[in-house]
Amino acid sequence: MKTAILLLHCPDKPGLIAELTNFVTVNNGNIVYLDQYVDHTEGIFFMRMEWDLGKFLIPTDKIEDYFTTLYAQKHNMEFRLYFSDKKPRMAIFVSKMSHCLYDMLARYTAGEWDVDIPLIISNHPDLKPAADRFGIPYHIFPITKDNKAELEPQEMKLLKDNDIDFIVLARYMQIISPEMIAAYPNKIINIHHSFLPAFVGAKPYHAAYARGVKLIGATSHYVTQDLDAGPIIEQDVTRITHKDTIQDLINKGKDLEKIVLSAAVQKHIERKILSFKNKTVIFN
Amino acid sequence: MKTAILLLHCPDKPGLIAELTNFVTVNNGNIVYLDQYVDHTEGIFFMRMEWDLGKFLIPTDKIEDYFTTLYAQKHNMEFRLYFSDKKPRMAIFVSKMSHCLYDMLARYTAGEWDVDIPLIISNHPDLKPAADRFGIPYHIFPITKDNKAELEPQEMKLLKDNDIDFIVLARYMQIISPEMIAAYPNKIINIHHSFLPAFVGAKPYHAAYARGVKLIGATSHYVTQDLDAGPIIEQDVTRITHKDTIQDLINKGKDLEKIVLSAAVQKHIERKILSFKNKTVIFN
Amino acid sequence: MKTAILLLHCPDKPGLIAELTNFVTVNNGNIVYLDQYVDHTEGIFFMRMEWDLGKFLIPTDKIEDYFTTLYAQKHNMEFRLYFSDKKPRMAIFVSKMSHCLYDMLARYTAGEWDVDIPLIISNHPDLKPAADRFGIPYHIFPITKDNKAELEPQEMKLLKDNDIDFIVLARYMQIISPEMIAAYPNKIINIHHSFLPAFVGAKPYHAAYARGVKLIGATSHYVTQDLDAGPIIEQDVTRITHKDTIQDLINKGKDLEKIVLSAAVQKHIERKILSFKNKTVIFN
Amino acid sequence: MKTAILLLHCPDKPGLIAELTNFVTVNNGNIVYLDQYVDHTEGIFFMRMEWDLGKFLIPTDKIEDYFTTLYAQKHNMEFRLYFSDKKPRMAIFVSKMSHCLYDMLARYTAGEWDVDIPLIISNHPDLKPAADRFGIPYHIFPITKDNKAELEPQEMKLLKDNDIDFIVLARYMQIISPEMIAAYPNKIINIHHSFLPAFVGAKPYHAAYARGVKLIGATSHYVTQDLDAGPIIEQDVTRITHKDTIQDLINKGKDLEKIVLSAAVQKHIERKILSFKNKTVIFN
Repeated sequence: MKTAILLLHCPDKPGLIAELTNFVTVNNGNIVYLDQYVDHTEGIFFMRMEWDLGKFLIPTDKIEDYFTTLYAQKHNMEFRLYFSDKKPRMAIFVSKMSHCLYDMLARYTAGEWDVDIPLIISNHPDLKPAADRFGIPYHIFPITKDNKAELEPQEMKLLKDNDIDFIVLARYMQIISPEMIAAYPNKIINIHHSFLPAFVGAKPYHAAYARGVKLIGATSHYVTQDLDAGPIIEQDVTRITHKDTIQDLINKGKDLEKIVLSAAVQKHIERKILSFKNKTVIFN
Repeated sequence: MKTAILLLHCPDKPGLIAELTNFVTVNNGNIVYLDQYVDHTEGIFFMRMEWDLGKFLIPTDKIEDYFTTLYAQKHNMEFRLYFSDKKPRMAIFVSKMSHCLYDMLARYTAGEWDVDIPLIISNHPDLKPAADRFGIPYHIFPITKDNKAELEPQEMKLLKDNDIDFIVLARYMQIISPEMIAAYPNKIINIHHSFLPAFVGAKPYHAAYARGVKLIGATSHYVTQDLDAGPIIEQDVTRITHKDTIQDLINKGKDLEKIVLSAAVQKHIERKILSFKNKTVIFN
Repeated sequence: MKTAILLLHCPDKPGLIAELTNFVTVNNGNIVYLDQYVDHTEGIFFMRMEWDLGKFLIPTDKIEDYFTTLYAQKHNMEFRLYFSDKKPRMAIFVSKMSHCLYDMLARYTAGEWDVDIPLIISNHPDLKPAADRFGIPYHIFPITKDNKAELEPQEMKLLKDNDIDFIVLARYMQIISPEMIAAYPNKIINIHHSFLPAFVGAKPYHAAYARGVKLIGATSHYVTQDLDAGPIIEQDVTRITHKDTIQDLINKGKDLEKIVLSAAVQKHIERKILSFKNKTVIFN
Repeated sequence: MKTAILLLHCPDKPGLIAELTNFVTVNNGNIVYLDQYVDHTEGIFFMRMEWDLGKFLIPTDKIEDYFTTLYAQKHNMEFRLYFSDKKPRMAIFVSKMSHCLYDMLARYTAGEWDVDIPLIISNHPDLKPAADRFGIPYHIFPITKDNKAELEPQEMKLLKDNDIDFIVLARYMQIISPEMIAAYPNKIINIHHSFLPAFVGAKPYHAAYARGVKLIGATSHYVTQDLDAGPIIEQDVTRITHKDTIQDLINKGKDLEKIVLSAAVQKHIERKILSFKNKTVIFN
């Protein structure tokens, strides 16, 4: 079954759902998923709709055009249209820690994710053996603060040559430049090893230990130009006690990090995330 | 703002949402809440819709009639219609433990729940002081297995005289008769002190201790004629260790029980629960 | 059974447990609880030991003296000694929200806590009816920033006259002065409605909503002179979604707040908390 | 640092800790970990003690002998003695699902676990590529109910030839024979995909879906001859809603299963589990 997936938001008004579901049904589309939500504070209508294209009367390559003309302009909508037979292409960035990488590659290899992963990028050679185990090309860009301006354009060319749709920072320990962030808006997913906004920046487990918290957390979010301040996708926490050392926190945190990051990546692959004003709407 | 709340389910078919939202909007109703869900396995469409009646063209006392004629019969629907200005009336049944009772009375007294609680019923006198503190009439029916056939009809008369809409069993330790359950279908909420279906029946904490579980739970559900087997509304668990005695389990369980029961009662008061085939659809 | 409870910490060295348990057993005490922990980073030994005084050879009123002479001075120990027949005396401070207050009074009235609550203090009259329901004197000190220097000494006199051992701030919305904090070191328990250190200060739910977090939390801690920065006793979180308004966050947070605060108070009453360098050791 | 790890239980009596810690300290051992627990209901003392052997006066190969003579016989103790320089050897059994296998191999390869994994055994060829990626020998025994009596002895010989200390059933879908269980008492760890004792046996997610639970779980336990009834090591749950299909439950359950199984394996590797009367004592 080939489906179309429509994600949109616009100013709320009466009759939107009726009008939009009507668009699909009168054109012989069969709606297989529909969820909508109105933010009454902001007055914004959000919707995700997916329909079977089997008997849909509008040709696939015309849907975007028709929808823009008939609805998007009229209702001042922002929308994205995807097709289920077009797999998103994902790049993974890593440094030296392998837990998030292995977790994603295991899901990918088991066929759990409808995605292509044509390449892995790192600033270190350490995880090349992990990439090799799964037969995925591993590219090393030894980026530092000093050579970032020189090397990042090469990275971006590689990403472009590989038609990369989105990037996952799997404990990648370099800051992404504003240029690269601008090229991938709401398309770079990071995992931060704290329950944001607590412990922004470097060494959050050390900070958590020093503060004496009883819970540690992890947060996946889209990368924006403000460090660790982009739209949050998923968070979770786990309980610790006074007995846990910093090393215990680091170890316990790994499970959190990989589960929280993979959950965010999965939602992104399934096109179930809408970003609006530095927050996310997550459909389920 | 006075609103109407419509809860319904029917066999799924294309165009239902458009048709139903249209009913409200063409009659000058303003939809303030809409959530729907299709169970594709069963082929059933579920919906909760709430709209402002301020300018609604159909008189309040005719809505049920019109809706039945225009939609329910046509689509083989089951539906319930509520109005926000009609508070549900709730009876609480207790035995000797006070934690769930106090939790509900505290919420009620603080004005958190849009409900009336005209009476408390018990098979023991122990909690009369608690009822007195909050000024709620406390009726004692010393029901046992032997006199249930005689006393329960008196209870049911009291409930009827007080226009009781639904009943909450707040650690009430007597089994409700099939007759009474039949009179309040999906209108009796119980709290069971285990994560059902584990540890059905009496003394679940003793059973949990004996089994050596690492989590204990609580489950709120609608009462049906099969003991502890009705539609589950809410569940939660908490972690225990080998150090916890049976008494520790009982103590730790109290917090679970009261939170899980009150969460279920709140969803019921908000008319956000639909029951279908021994399961619940919980709108949020 | 009357017991002694000893809480201590000192620089770690070999043989401490043997020596300390020996102190009890050779004097015919029967140890009913023992837990110890070594912070290897700091080199500190922590212990909680409780023993039956039934046949203990040292008179109760001499134990502190003997222990100081024989062990505390020798090992550079800080220790606290309690007796199970001496109930701690607790004051509750409230403002206008009742959920934490009711939760504690329900536990107290049900006999779950081995504590006396001789009085409730507030800066507002709103919760007097709640105190009245449970027959606990309610004292109003309409404290503001401007009159705090004048009124707080009267409060402190009242606390002293009532032999108050510790204070619980149950959503009390005034800052406690440094003088009062100094008079009750690690004896004032506060509940903050966020997962600290995120959202320190006023209106944390508004801040959480603005940031778009997916979890909200609550934190109970001892009050120190740095706002919301004292030793954390207990924390917990609950999941929220984009659908939750600020008011939903406030409502959902209430359950967290009362459970997290009561958990901390219970640990304090049971003398299971040791504070060290702005962190807590929580025995279980 | 080479350490000895002692795990023991015996009837409780005064002075045990003093006596046992004394054994280490007078022989120049430095205790680096000590935790003990008394089950007052059963009257049993449990202890885990670990000490640095650097200057320990008793030769490593005599410790067991000395300890038996001096303490174990006298106090009717059961004990196990391990040395940190002897890595446990672990076999993994799998069928067709890869998520638990990959999770463990990722930890193993990253050096998180102090263990050797010399082989993987399966009743199907499907996961051979996964084993190959990590360079671990993969042995196929196509065991069915009918040929189990014939093939299992070959399996057991392979395990013996490889000095296997314990076995992890990573979603292995064959029942282990009583003979094999008897040969590895409390040394076979299974993951069951429900919160036991709910949904014992096959297809627990189907049963959970049918029952309409709001939480699904996973349970790791030692295998005994009663199906899914051995000592529980670790459990966890995750929230589901009416929207989740059976397939969603299976997918969401995978994360639970792998984390809960790996947590149990890690505790076993660290020698932090004591089994007693079908329950576990888990030191932390």
